[in-house]
Amino acid sequence: MLKVYKVSLKGYASDLDIGASKAKQILWFLTNVLFFKNPFIVISSLKGYLLKAFGAKVGKGLVMKPSVNIKYPWKLELGDYCWIGEKVWIDNLAPVIIGNNVCISQGAMLLCGNHDFTKSTFDLLVKPITLEDGVWIGAKSMVCPGVLCATHSILTVQSVATRNLSAYTIYQGNPALAVKKRIVVY
Amino acid sequence: MLKVYKVSLKGYASDLDIGASKAKQILWFLTNVLFFKNPFIVISSLKGYLLKAFGAKVGKGLVMKPSVNIKYPWKLELGDYCWIGEKVWIDNLAPVIIGNNVCISQGAMLLCGNHDFTKSTFDLLVKPITLEDGVWIGAKSMVCPGVLCATHSILTVQSVATRNLSAYTIYQGNPALAVKKRIVVY
Amino acid sequence: MLKVYKVSLKGYASDLDIGASKAKQILWFLTNVLFFKNPFIVISSLKGYLLKAFGAKVGKGLVMKPSVNIKYPWKLELGDYCWIGEKVWIDNLAPVIIGNNVCISQGAMLLCGNHDFTKSTFDLLVKPITLEDGVWIGAKSMVCPGVLCATHSILTVQSVATRNLSAYTIYQGNPALAVKKRIVVY
Repeated sequence: MLKVYKVSLKGYASDLDIGASKAKQILWFLTNVLFFKNPFIVISSLKGYLLKAFGAKVGKGLVMKPSVNIKYPWKLELGDYCWIGEKVWIDNLAPVIIGNNVCISQGAMLLCGNHDFTKSTFDLLVKPITLEDGVWIGAKSMVCPGVLCATHSILTVQSVATRNLSAYTIYQGNPALAVKKRIVVY
Repeated sequence: MLKVYKVSLKGYASDLDIGASKAKQILWFLTNVLFFKNPFIVISSLKGYLLKAFGAKVGKGLVMKPSVNIKYPWKLELGDYCWIGEKVWIDNLAPVIIGNNVCISQGAMLLCGNHDFTKSTFDLLVKPITLEDGVWIGAKSMVCPGVLCATHSILTVQSVATRNLSAYTIYQGNPALAVKKRIVVY
Repeated sequence: MLKVYKVSLKGYASDLDIGASKAKQILWFLTNVLFFKNPFIVISSLKGYLLKAFGAKVGKGLVMKPSVNIKYPWKLELGDYCWIGEKVWIDNLAPVIIGNNVCISQGAMLLCGNHDFTKSTFDLLVKPITLEDGVWIGAKSMVCPGVLCATHSILTVQSVATRNLSAYTIYQGNPALAVKKRIVVY
């Protein structure tokens, strides 16, 4: 018979490669609260400038609404003409790579962190997320660690992408399933 | 064979009729952050007063908790004895019409905006939402653009109403499906 | 034929036993906004100290991230080595009892309040929530009133636990259904 093990968080230690000095992490933490999470700050160009100063790649024409939460800008790439809605949460413990003309609607979350729930040590697992050109992540929806949303895929409102999304396809539910093709007529 | 078109957000221009001067929009933006989104402000009567000053119709007995987010009060109608829970988000790019004795629980969202994902121009589409008398929108649930929630319908916790809800009926899931009738016994 | 009754929130009065003086409630309301909801406050030990000062039981090794929202600390018990993620919302109108080595991930909610939707008076109903040792409540997921999550159960990302979760079992969806066993191999 299988022995039943128990989780212990007492000795937990993450070996995550954060990719920035402690000083840079603290400075970004403050910048994130003061300029990104802050509900008053509406100027997208300022946010693009700050993201680049902290190591993000940011394309032209960024639109970023207030109350956005970004974990590590040095692990973020944004293509041209991306829209990041109000209260979007990019929890990028691992790289998040976003193409051109991508829309992430209000309240959506990109989640890169997981735990190995088969180990009593509950080890941190992180995986990158990729959103290719023309993807639309719907309001309050969720993209899980390691997911690739192929070009022009759509994740509908409050749905949860647990697996890769196919190009030009619309997904709904938790877990999100393909419900129809996306045809762009002109 | 069908030509595959791509979305371009470069030349995007919304033709939304906001319904207020730029000055009024800015004043409301500040009022929303300072008095509605603000987690300290608990006085419902003050919020009712401010909403009416910005053009909302507000009935008697409003209860509105802190950290609420309202897009355009001049597109909002609230009946008598409505409850708006903590962190409710009324994203009313289009009119939101709420009847009497309606309860919108904490963290719920009314979403009026959509995009035409069949066009490379990704045009904004907005549709009104109506909640009739006695409706209950559950915690962290979502009402999608154009949805009518008929009298005394219920949307359960964290569910997503993508279509109209029938009177005295309870809906659950994403998309929300009817699960049973609501019988009010006395 | 059944008479159709309507909800009336006009005369609504909760008979909830809050379990604290009005002064204590107000003091906690301010403490919650200033030290728990506040996105700047990262020091878990300070939060543990404050929770205990307001009547919570708090074990060793608490990790509590910023922007957490707790309703009534005097109705909260936290075991040893618990993690409470960013933006977790413990809406404990009734007692919330959390064991050892429990992880509540970012954006998750424990909801103790409900309403009797079969009565025109819409009476408040509250029920306790219990999370036993080793439970993992996933990001943006929801535990409903009265639910017991048995030891080492997992509620996956953005799922909704409407019924008790069995030990060492993984649940997904809205409502959350058992999808597989959790085997902890060492």
